[in-house]
Amino acid sequence: METSNSVASARKEKDLLGDAWVPSDAYYGIQTQRACDNFDLSGVTLQHFPQLVNALSMVKLACAKANQKLNLIDDHKVTAIQAAVHTILQGQHHDQFVVDMIQGGAGTSTNMNANEVIANIGLESMGYEKGEYKHLHPNNDVNMSQSTNDAYPSAVRLAILLKHSDLIRSLTGLRDAFAGKGMEFANIIKMGRTQLQDAVPMTLGQEFQSFATTLGEDIDRLAGLSDLLKEINLGGTAIGTGINTDPEYAKFAVNFLSEISGFEFKRATDLVEASSDMGAFILFSSMLKRLAVKLSKISNDLRMLSMGPRCGLNEINLPPQQPGSSIMPGKINPVIPEAVNQVAYQVIGNDLAVTMASEAGQLQLNAMEPLITYNILESMRMLTQAMDMLKNRCVRGITANVERCQELVDMSIGIITAVVPYLGYEDSTRIAKSALASGRGVLELIREEGLMTEEALQEVLKPSNMIQPQKRRG
Amino acid sequence: METSNSVASARKEKDLLGDAWVPSDAYYGIQTQRACDNFDLSGVTLQHFPQLVNALSMVKLACAKANQKLNLIDDHKVTAIQAAVHTILQGQHHDQFVVDMIQGGAGTSTNMNANEVIANIGLESMGYEKGEYKHLHPNNDVNMSQSTNDAYPSAVRLAILLKHSDLIRSLTGLRDAFAGKGMEFANIIKMGRTQLQDAVPMTLGQEFQSFATTLGEDIDRLAGLSDLLKEINLGGTAIGTGINTDPEYAKFAVNFLSEISGFEFKRATDLVEASSDMGAFILFSSMLKRLAVKLSKISNDLRMLSMGPRCGLNEINLPPQQPGSSIMPGKINPVIPEAVNQVAYQVIGNDLAVTMASEAGQLQLNAMEPLITYNILESMRMLTQAMDMLKNRCVRGITANVERCQELVDMSIGIITAVVPYLGYEDSTRIAKSALASGRGVLELIREEGLMTEEALQEVLKPSNMIQPQKRRG
Amino acid sequence: METSNSVASARKEKDLLGDAWVPSDAYYGIQTQRACDNFDLSGVTLQHFPQLVNALSMVKLACAKANQKLNLIDDHKVTAIQAAVHTILQGQHHDQFVVDMIQGGAGTSTNMNANEVIANIGLESMGYEKGEYKHLHPNNDVNMSQSTNDAYPSAVRLAILLKHSDLIRSLTGLRDAFAGKGMEFANIIKMGRTQLQDAVPMTLGQEFQSFATTLGEDIDRLAGLSDLLKEINLGGTAIGTGINTDPEYAKFAVNFLSEISGFEFKRATDLVEASSDMGAFILFSSMLKRLAVKLSKISNDLRMLSMGPRCGLNEINLPPQQPGSSIMPGKINPVIPEAVNQVAYQVIGNDLAVTMASEAGQLQLNAMEPLITYNILESMRMLTQAMDMLKNRCVRGITANVERCQELVDMSIGIITAVVPYLGYEDSTRIAKSALASGRGVLELIREEGLMTEEALQEVLKPSNMIQPQKRRG
Amino acid sequence: METSNSVASARKEKDLLGDAWVPSDAYYGIQTQRACDNFDLSGVTLQHFPQLVNALSMVKLACAKANQKLNLIDDHKVTAIQAAVHTILQGQHHDQFVVDMIQGGAGTSTNMNANEVIANIGLESMGYEKGEYKHLHPNNDVNMSQSTNDAYPSAVRLAILLKHSDLIRSLTGLRDAFAGKGMEFANIIKMGRTQLQDAVPMTLGQEFQSFATTLGEDIDRLAGLSDLLKEINLGGTAIGTGINTDPEYAKFAVNFLSEISGFEFKRATDLVEASSDMGAFILFSSMLKRLAVKLSKISNDLRMLSMGPRCGLNEINLPPQQPGSSIMPGKINPVIPEAVNQVAYQVIGNDLAVTMASEAGQLQLNAMEPLITYNILESMRMLTQAMDMLKNRCVRGITANVERCQELVDMSIGIITAVVPYLGYEDSTRIAKSALASGRGVLELIREEGLMTEEALQEVLKPSNMIQPQKRRG
Repeated sequence: METSNSVASARKEKDLLGDAWVPSDAYYGIQTQRACDNFDLSGVTLQHFPQLVNALSMVKLACAKANQKLNLIDDHKVTAIQAAVHTILQGQHHDQFVVDMIQGGAGTSTNMNANEVIANIGLESMGYEKGEYKHLHPNNDVNMSQSTNDAYPSAVRLAILLKHSDLIRSLTGLRDAFAGKGMEFANIIKMGRTQLQDAVPMTLGQEFQSFATTLGEDIDRLAGLSDLLKEINLGGTAIGTGINTDPEYAKFAVNFLSEISGFEFKRATDLVEASSDMGAFILFSSMLKRLAVKLSKISNDLRMLSMGPRCGLNEINLPPQQPGSSIMPGKINPVIPEAVNQVAYQVIGNDLAVTMASEAGQLQLNAMEPLITYNILESMRMLTQAMDMLKNRCVRGITANVERCQELVDMSIGIITAVVPYLGYEDSTRIAKSALASGRGVLELIREEGLMTEEALQEVLKPSNMIQPQKRRG
Repeated sequence: METSNSVASARKEKDLLGDAWVPSDAYYGIQTQRACDNFDLSGVTLQHFPQLVNALSMVKLACAKANQKLNLIDDHKVTAIQAAVHTILQGQHHDQFVVDMIQGGAGTSTNMNANEVIANIGLESMGYEKGEYKHLHPNNDVNMSQSTNDAYPSAVRLAILLKHSDLIRSLTGLRDAFAGKGMEFANIIKMGRTQLQDAVPMTLGQEFQSFATTLGEDIDRLAGLSDLLKEINLGGTAIGTGINTDPEYAKFAVNFLSEISGFEFKRATDLVEASSDMGAFILFSSMLKRLAVKLSKISNDLRMLSMGPRCGLNEINLPPQQPGSSIMPGKINPVIPEAVNQVAYQVIGNDLAVTMASEAGQLQLNAMEPLITYNILESMRMLTQAMDMLKNRCVRGITANVERCQELVDMSIGIITAVVPYLGYEDSTRIAKSALASGRGVLELIREEGLMTEEALQEVLKPSNMIQPQKRRG
Repeated sequence: METSNSVASARKEKDLLGDAWVPSDAYYGIQTQRACDNFDLSGVTLQHFPQLVNALSMVKLACAKANQKLNLIDDHKVTAIQAAVHTILQGQHHDQFVVDMIQGGAGTSTNMNANEVIANIGLESMGYEKGEYKHLHPNNDVNMSQSTNDAYPSAVRLAILLKHSDLIRSLTGLRDAFAGKGMEFANIIKMGRTQLQDAVPMTLGQEFQSFATTLGEDIDRLAGLSDLLKEINLGGTAIGTGINTDPEYAKFAVNFLSEISGFEFKRATDLVEASSDMGAFILFSSMLKRLAVKLSKISNDLRMLSMGPRCGLNEINLPPQQPGSSIMPGKINPVIPEAVNQVAYQVIGNDLAVTMASEAGQLQLNAMEPLITYNILESMRMLTQAMDMLKNRCVRGITANVERCQELVDMSIGIITAVVPYLGYEDSTRIAKSALASGRGVLELIREEGLMTEEALQEVLKPSNMIQPQKRRG
Repeated sequence: METSNSVASARKEKDLLGDAWVPSDAYYGIQTQRACDNFDLSGVTLQHFPQLVNALSMVKLACAKANQKLNLIDDHKVTAIQAAVHTILQGQHHDQFVVDMIQGGAGTSTNMNANEVIANIGLESMGYEKGEYKHLHPNNDVNMSQSTNDAYPSAVRLAILLKHSDLIRSLTGLRDAFAGKGMEFANIIKMGRTQLQDAVPMTLGQEFQSFATTLGEDIDRLAGLSDLLKEINLGGTAIGTGINTDPEYAKFAVNFLSEISGFEFKRATDLVEASSDMGAFILFSSMLKRLAVKLSKISNDLRMLSMGPRCGLNEINLPPQQPGSSIMPGKINPVIPEAVNQVAYQVIGNDLAVTMASEAGQLQLNAMEPLITYNILESMRMLTQAMDMLKNRCVRGITANVERCQELVDMSIGIITAVVPYLGYEDSTRIAKSALASGRGVLELIREEGLMTEEALQEVLKPSNMIQPQKRRG
């Protein structure tokens, strides 16, 4: 964190609290500087989320255009703002977004960081020096017709939408990788297990396809819930009453933002409510939690199915990624799914932080929105990384131990289930008990008692007939 | 908890583990008895959620009809099952659903409780004694073509859908009560507050309408998410492969369940996935959490706005419901919203239990589904009670302290915001600081400096002009 | 919930809000009645926690004695209070404690329920009718020198201490059961597993003893943290300033409570802080969470070690408690540990509710203390039940599959670890890889390469030598 | 993240999985490189927690010395290890600790990162090139007698202990700042509030002292719980059986670690249990949560007491740190306590991640320990920063609005409480109701009814007499 003392060259700016120094070469200004001095908490600054920086910039441009349409701002100022925003959208000056993601002030520091950087880039484009705000003012011009309380939440929603495509791309890739394995393993018969006890046969392909299916559902669900983020409160200003805006402003601003961003935003019908409501964030974060829970369950399964190599289920092999032990030679551990589990737990923890921050809203605003923003963007980032890792470094390289799978089916008792429609629950139970007690096979015992014809038995107990519904014989 | 020793008269039944005694007059059987002996944990039994009892019964009837259509079961057995189910749906014999909501076995005990009770009621309707299972068997007949692993989750989804209407009715009632107050208070000007600091004026009606709006959104959202519960895995039996069912069975069973229940169910496309997936529960529980967060935020606001009577905001009065103190005479406390807060925290805690239980699924099943069921149904019940309480015992009786609201606006500095478009951010800031330092009024200072004409000032600073967007003057 | 309309016979009482009817035979009075009318949320009333009822009574007696010592109350009133309290401590009239555990008012309703019941029992013992409060008044006499805000939190702490012995007894029993199995299985060699992969040998006894050890640590820790609950704010009255008390009162009251209850209470040094501080509850609830986490981990292990019977680890057998499936004959599931998992998740969810309620304290009080009380007492109750269940219905009946354990060790690669000090990490790694690739045994390969003398090899690879530190051989 | 392709100059190393390139100038080796390639999740690497880097180094030195004492390693190798460790403890080469804090493998990558860096620094000190491991080997020498599973958890515990003093220093500073304000405000009478309603008088000093007291308790409690971290499993190696160690090794290693670090470590009595037990972490993290809850409650209070400036309680002023609004001139917001709230919510979320990770332990190990480590260290860091911020940028500059405080007391009804011992609860209640209804003062009404002598009244109602226990008059 830079302070005014540590910089060789500085310019003086002033605000409500008085004067303060800002580094000469900084595009940000006094309020950003104060925020940096105040907050050093997460250690993660705005620039780490380029989507947020871009989203803030788009909001500023949309508002400037709406003001222009209402003749509230000079055209050359809008030109300067537009130039600045384009520069940022091209990836420049992101290093000027220096405020900590965790900050007091309900996002005011983030909003002012954007206002100041855009004003100063704009000033330079107009031929002025940084800080000559009478020509382009962070508050009067860049923030015109806005409050942090509508500009910031709108930008946060847009940032999530911008990040969303990464998440979906990663999720889709993982889903497809599992589906590919589902096809690859379509003919491998194995025992299904419920409550960790041997149940009835299935294919390994069915098992992997189920991972694909469950992730595929989340693609749909995430898309559905991200739509809720397209309802914004832009134009509501301080508390949703739209104070200091023209009656037509909100409509214009929202439309320009849709045009600029490519997302179809709509104005919340109750802007007072929309100013303090965190409902869409709660639900979206919960959906990230749901994805985390699914990834954790899948990771647990992969780790369990690959237990071994000699003393566990050992039905599948995960591709080795690193030596597993500093003491046990030859040990390979399921490090990739283990890392996914941990990301999942962090996302669930982050969701709790979002929940608590949401509950802490008071009266016309929720001052904790920066924490909500941070956690949602961070969870999205980590999930994206984790799913890419799981796909590339684990799923794609998984192989099946076909013989092991078959061997377990052959020695199982669970296949007795298939004869229940013929022998009834009670006789079947008796045979199962007897098999378990004697260590003998189920087939053998049924045969011995002559309970079914050999032909019927063969047909019914054929594993491939047990993995889907069957017309009852005879 | 009854045990076999404590009953005067008993019948002997047998299962996989051997013989055991069941009370003679019990419609449940040996497996229910064992479950009662095993589990005494929450102290809350199935019968406390009549929707769950009814849902289980409807599933049993739907399956019997599907089996009948496939000629797998005799008509007179179906007649007996139908008679038993109707009896239960009329509210009889719910006291026979005696298993603890928290139970091991992934719902097997719940499913067997239903199978046994329906079998025994059915047996009596056929003229047999309880326990004469050769005429109507809990497993072979009532549970035909089913596993706990498809019958139980389907019933749980139906139970939530059945309970859902209560929740929505209560939520709608509360929403309407707030909307009514929104209209009643439409003309009361008050200060809006952001970050607990004086902001700009609004109406008390806007504030209460925002409570109505935010709750109204949850009516839509809950409806949307409850739709996800209509995808069921009936027909998947043990692990989703449909073992022991006819290829047409699943379709028939799902259709009959839709017909019987009135909800349009559809069969999950991937039944293996659907057997272990808790995704719909996670998201629905998260939505209950979201509602809880909103109720807690609203309750916090009501408590804050009614702080006083003399030393707080005191903008509104909550209707007194009980003396507030055992030591301080005359004290009245906001006990109703305080109780809502607590229900909200419990619901959020319950959601965590759901999350953890969902993450604990393994391989082809989630053995923790009974806990998920318990927490979702219990959260729905408590939210329903809490919202009815809040509506009837608090919101409807809220009155406004009109003069107090006006007085606070008049003495505020926040109205300076409205002149920013005319004076600019910096001059306005200077005046605000001066007002704060001197204790003088904003209006007075602007006038003194002659910064605006009196007419313009009057117009701009009229509170009623500050509560919505305005065309800029001049 | 009774209302005044539904009772055949009623007496009229009055309070700050006016008159209301109370059932004639009720020992509780008007304020309790109002609380019942207001709150129907959890469905669980005070009487379900007898320790809380008893604790409230002891606090009332202690305060009465302190007042008596200061000559603030007539002796015959104290005699009546004492008689009433003794009656309650003998288990009578607990059904008069009818208020819902979740209640607004920071415990006022609970406190008044106790004040009213004790007053009315006392009145009868004095020969008066219920309701003749001029002779013994719920507020003026029973609640003398008290506020809910000191009497209630003190009683809650005492209630937890009273319940604590049940929890410890149950935990100790479970610990001992595991320790017993640890001894029973002391000579059974098995493979240890880290990250679910085969690691190095150990004994099954070591594994079970580790369960005993980890639970034993919690006995100590719970005891240590429960000590924090012995610091109480009795005498602080409304906000900790001790208004309306004699300077010597607090000391007397605390001493009498210690004498009556048998716990050594001490007065908080800062009573203002103690009035709103929930710190001891947060930490104690966290400790219950820790115990829940441990029980869940142990349950997971028991379920995994007993996976099978044919297609899993199958190192141990859990005693069967109920048939495992409504469709799969002979299936037995680990229902008892599954139920423990679920209780654990609920306790963790309850801890979150405690956390949120604690954070919601404001200024001089925490109005959410009833929720904290409910969750802590309920978690203690459920943990006690679950541990008794786990001990009696699972741990005690666990048997080992000795041959299976040995077989897995014999076929494992992990034993290579023991030769690392002799061959080095890299040669050992090479042999492990080769064994894995070829399906051959580690021993065989070392022999083949002549890397160690047969004697040395035998000695080093003796499983019993691998389960503890060893002097390195030559 | 560097990969082998991107570096100009590289050396080849090999491990169980084959060859790979490592940057020539890197002190870390192949296993660290693989971990970097595998894990890019949190974006936070080991070097961000210097205490962890130092702790790992101290453990390595302690083990080397223990091995030396047992003549298992050559003296010149120990000399090289010692030189390397000292270099690191002086703050050098921390940038070589490059693995992501979130990693699969139960800390193996962290342990190997330390082993490799120390080996290579040591090699250079011996005059060899990096990578010439035959002279000093990461596994055979630096990791001798160790497994990740004992070295890593021991280092994590030490890291927390090393960080602990920062946390305590910051907490003590904040406590003292509050205590200072407690003294400064000792004579300012104000209204106490319970459940946000006016209660009885107190001093502002009492209020601030209560903040000091509650934080002071956490100093004690944190110290007590950190002691639990001094029990370590060093010497247990892979699963706690101590395989590959000399019987005396564990004792020596623990003693050397105590000597080197200055903390009195002791060896866990049950090393098998200690290998997988996360109990001490759960409880320590819960204690961080408790501190977070307290800080959040205090922050909420500071924000509420400073509500205003004109339309709220306005009893205190927080020092302004930055302009509060981009639209509302002159607005100052309580940004510092708002930021503390957010840190608190994050810490509570992190605690949930710790809880879930702890529950995920399986059999002989908990593979999720890296996440636990990350969250505990990060929560400690953030709490430290947040408390320093709160002290320096808020508490120290708080001023009281003395007149406002007095005014509120004077107009309050709550002072009626003080006359209850004289007038009884019912008459007092009547007067309170009357005052509230009429808007008149309590004093005035008592006088009017002649219920007490003027002298008595004056004495009893003197605010300074109401802030502590009083002998009853008359």
